[in-house]
Amino acid sequence: MERLLPRIHSPRDVRALPESELPRLCEELREEIIAVCGRVGGHLGASLGAVELIVALHRVFHSPQDALVFDVGHQTYAHKLLTGRRERMDTLRQAGGIAPFLDPRESPHDALAAGHASTAVSAGLGMLQGRRLRGLPGHVVAVVGDGALTGGLAFEGLNNTGGTHLPLVVVLNDNQMSISANVGAIPALLRTHEARAFFEGLGFTYLGPVDGHDLPALLHTLREARASSRPVVVHALTKKGRGFPPAEADLQTRGHAMGPYEWRDGKLVRSRGGHRTFSEAFAAALDALMARDARVVAVTPAMLEGSALVELQRRYPERVFDVGIAEQHAVTFCAGLAATGLRPVCAIYSTFLQRAYDQIIHDVCLPGLPVLFAVDRAGLVGADGATHQGAYDVASLRPIPGLTVMAPVTGEDLPGLLATALSLEGPSLLRFPRGTLPEAPPALSVESPEPVRGARWVKRAPRARITFITLGPFALSAWEAASAEPDWSVLDARFVSPLDEAAVLEAAACGRLVVAEEGTTRGGLGSAVLELLAAKQVPARVTLLGMPDTFVPHGDARVQRAELGLDAAGLRRAALALLAEGKAS
Amino acid sequence: MERLLPRIHSPRDVRALPESELPRLCEELREEIIAVCGRVGGHLGASLGAVELIVALHRVFHSPQDALVFDVGHQTYAHKLLTGRRERMDTLRQAGGIAPFLDPRESPHDALAAGHASTAVSAGLGMLQGRRLRGLPGHVVAVVGDGALTGGLAFEGLNNTGGTHLPLVVVLNDNQMSISANVGAIPALLRTHEARAFFEGLGFTYLGPVDGHDLPALLHTLREARASSRPVVVHALTKKGRGFPPAEADLQTRGHAMGPYEWRDGKLVRSRGGHRTFSEAFAAALDALMARDARVVAVTPAMLEGSALVELQRRYPERVFDVGIAEQHAVTFCAGLAATGLRPVCAIYSTFLQRAYDQIIHDVCLPGLPVLFAVDRAGLVGADGATHQGAYDVASLRPIPGLTVMAPVTGEDLPGLLATALSLEGPSLLRFPRGTLPEAPPALSVESPEPVRGARWVKRAPRARITFITLGPFALSAWEAASAEPDWSVLDARFVSPLDEAAVLEAAACGRLVVAEEGTTRGGLGSAVLELLAAKQVPARVTLLGMPDTFVPHGDARVQRAELGLDAAGLRRAALALLAEGKAS
Repeated sequence: MERLLPRIHSPRDVRALPESELPRLCEELREEIIAVCGRVGGHLGASLGAVELIVALHRVFHSPQDALVFDVGHQTYAHKLLTGRRERMDTLRQAGGIAPFLDPRESPHDALAAGHASTAVSAGLGMLQGRRLRGLPGHVVAVVGDGALTGGLAFEGLNNTGGTHLPLVVVLNDNQMSISANVGAIPALLRTHEARAFFEGLGFTYLGPVDGHDLPALLHTLREARASSRPVVVHALTKKGRGFPPAEADLQTRGHAMGPYEWRDGKLVRSRGGHRTFSEAFAAALDALMARDARVVAVTPAMLEGSALVELQRRYPERVFDVGIAEQHAVTFCAGLAATGLRPVCAIYSTFLQRAYDQIIHDVCLPGLPVLFAVDRAGLVGADGATHQGAYDVASLRPIPGLTVMAPVTGEDLPGLLATALSLEGPSLLRFPRGTLPEAPPALSVESPEPVRGARWVKRAPRARITFITLGPFALSAWEAASAEPDWSVLDARFVSPLDEAAVLEAAACGRLVVAEEGTTRGGLGSAVLELLAAKQVPARVTLLGMPDTFVPHGDARVQRAELGLDAAGLRRAALALLAEGKAS
Repeated sequence: MERLLPRIHSPRDVRALPESELPRLCEELREEIIAVCGRVGGHLGASLGAVELIVALHRVFHSPQDALVFDVGHQTYAHKLLTGRRERMDTLRQAGGIAPFLDPRESPHDALAAGHASTAVSAGLGMLQGRRLRGLPGHVVAVVGDGALTGGLAFEGLNNTGGTHLPLVVVLNDNQMSISANVGAIPALLRTHEARAFFEGLGFTYLGPVDGHDLPALLHTLREARASSRPVVVHALTKKGRGFPPAEADLQTRGHAMGPYEWRDGKLVRSRGGHRTFSEAFAAALDALMARDARVVAVTPAMLEGSALVELQRRYPERVFDVGIAEQHAVTFCAGLAATGLRPVCAIYSTFLQRAYDQIIHDVCLPGLPVLFAVDRAGLVGADGATHQGAYDVASLRPIPGLTVMAPVTGEDLPGLLATALSLEGPSLLRFPRGTLPEAPPALSVESPEPVRGARWVKRAPRARITFITLGPFALSAWEAASAEPDWSVLDARFVSPLDEAAVLEAAACGRLVVAEEGTTRGGLGSAVLELLAAKQVPARVTLLGMPDTFVPHGDARVQRAELGLDAAGLRRAALALLAEGKAS
């Protein structure tokens, strides 16, 4: 039988199919998603669960005249396959290839960019109000996951929408999962008749629950929603990983996202993995601390797996809190914990920490509470792309009074820096990158659980002509770049805030500095160095290296580092250029 | 009859009174709040509405063994009066005096610091979990306003609490008002029987609604809540401004907060006011723009009055959106509006913009949508104190790619900068301070609605020895500081991002710069100047002036500026010091 998918170039083609062909289309979409993710990896769980829903949405609504606004966007591979991107799907998440989430620059069928959770209702309401004011036709549909529903932004959007009486269609794609299992009252609520009361109380007509894999029922309910003249929520029950046994069986890891794999004789063959990550080194160091200090507790906003805390939660079920997709709450909850004398460690990705910027300032730092932020995925994140880059944590949080900001070079540094954080009376932040642990040179390979103070010399040349000042794993690239040069030094700053002023001034005495960090150079460690030199009236030539003044797209982080000059070769080039300029003047 | 209040030194004394005396105590508290606010100004509306509630809370719960966690804290003057601070209440909101909101450093009865809305449930749950883990006794009560309930953080906290089944007592102080009238579905919900269904759906026992001015009913209901072994919400209906006719009659302005006043012969005599503020100049400029460009719309998160948009909303009811206390939603909603071709202007205070940091990055700047952020209260805010200082907007947002960041010196600058923002294809931010407009020197007094490009010279000395580079109204202080010096120049940067590199390099050619801004110096305009000079290898001595590396408390902003060296005299001292250093070396 001829496959349908190759004939689908746009949603118009989906609508032209006889309804009887739709189950086959869904089957082909599932096969394609499983095959693509097998070849290149990706968020297959959510996408497999949303296949019928997306087909039904494209039958009932006419994108792009009708706007489909997807929350997060990682459930939309079927949408990508139906909107002219099928032939390029093997480039998914790779440099120059199909985006990991949604991007209006990639397709007019992506109504809005999204990579973080809980945005669709607010953005959808804005689009509906905007169309109304501009006299433009068309429906607006906001597709929201049940996990994203626990994020406060989603609630703010629902509350405002309910008050406007405008006919926003909210489709609740309820697969009963965030990345981790859902927490809080909402999951139970959605399983009962109170779901209707909850949404009706917020001013919505409630339609459902409808089986999200039953196409006729979905089509019927979505048509009813389309006809509504007031806010309406369609509650669709779906199954994450539907149609792919390994994903269905292991929803929390394989079901969410996975690297390339082979699927042979009913068994899954992983093609990669095994190297220890920074997240795992963090979790191990935290484990050791929790074992000897009963005050230490851990909090994660729905990232038990990503932050490698699953095992720790098993060991300390009372002391590891998953609060769901709710970063603001995670931080303010930590403030409350700390106020009782506990030492909460809030494990959170750099990009999601942006959601809690005010809570860090207002609820933690202003009262000076000893909360430790363990900031994972700080720096380049590779395949997850622009929405997930960890570029702004240092620049935005360095100015906050009393917050100690640190970064380890290797996994072996983590115990000492965690101990440092817990020796402080106030708040602190420890940032580390996504990915596997680097191997440490001998000078840096001593594991120490003792608190550390100030910067450390990785390489100290007696008559240095130039010094690298680095943050985090950059010390290793700098060490590599400087290894053959007898008069190049390397200082691992370790602390961005408070900066080790004596060490930086000692480094600056050589007259030339290259400051390197994986974050924006606008306000980061490099700026801290410049501010110090200005305050002390110390003249020095300084080159700042870091993430560029653009949003870095998805791609291979190692390749991107090379392209951006953020590897040993790049550091070396920067140093040579600075030395050459010195000569020329 | 002897007054009761002078005998109340702690909540213990409240509990020792016979219940029959409590109405008189409430009456005295009201008189005292009205008198204090008459003398020194303050948030009298919310505090008048919460008198019985606070007395009842202190009867039923035993602070500080039981923790009372108040949202925002501006409703707590009665709490301050009952917890040993009565004799110092005339120092309210003044330097060294009683804090405007709550502060654990001021009293052990202030369980947690608060100045921003919607934090109490999350913080309260954290305290309850923390006490449980540490084996500490005591109840935790979170007091939440109905306005704060629309903030997503409050919902995140409720959802998590409902899932834990822990006996957090949430008291909903429902005065049916934010600062502005409430918006969205929640206000209507709270007026119906659906309120019960809503909170029960979130896992709470619902008690109420109870008349929040009926002491016996309140005491009864709070005792019932105290006995609960699971999460419970007490829904108390109160009246903002209760007992003070002018506040009751005009809830939205006088009812919220007011400056000192006299209350004579049944009439209110305002002792101050009348000068035009930056907020008003912004609203006037926006009005002119809206009149000639139908694409321009305005959005405010519950700050219609504070942002001077009341009149504008009357004139354009379809184009001015108050979305309630929901900063995240306000920004993502703007993204949706902009995606349809509108030009949304999001009016928001600097301190509350922190709540939407991720939405600015992820929903607006990443897709490059043309949203204009009009950032009010940027810099020192005076009496509102540490929780409300506008210190971090520039440092946190300068690194975001594609975001234009500007500041006007005077009200006359506003039309030109607004026009500039609207001439851009991407996002922009305009920051201006709290308070009255400065008078402009002749060089700066030309009103222009034309888009501007780059910095401008306020004073350009032919053979300058030093140049001030300033942001916003600092240009005027610098102009004053430099006026008598033939070889001192002043450059108004106007743009922080993109920095006018040519102008800054021209300024730096004199060899000495003083950069002044009302925001943190860690990553602000001064750092941008240093980064440019480093990149171009331009040697110059640079002094950075700005807000200090501490949280600035409440006080008179003018006095604080003088103390922090952020006035003309301070700028002059900094310049002379820099010139002297130059000679010494």
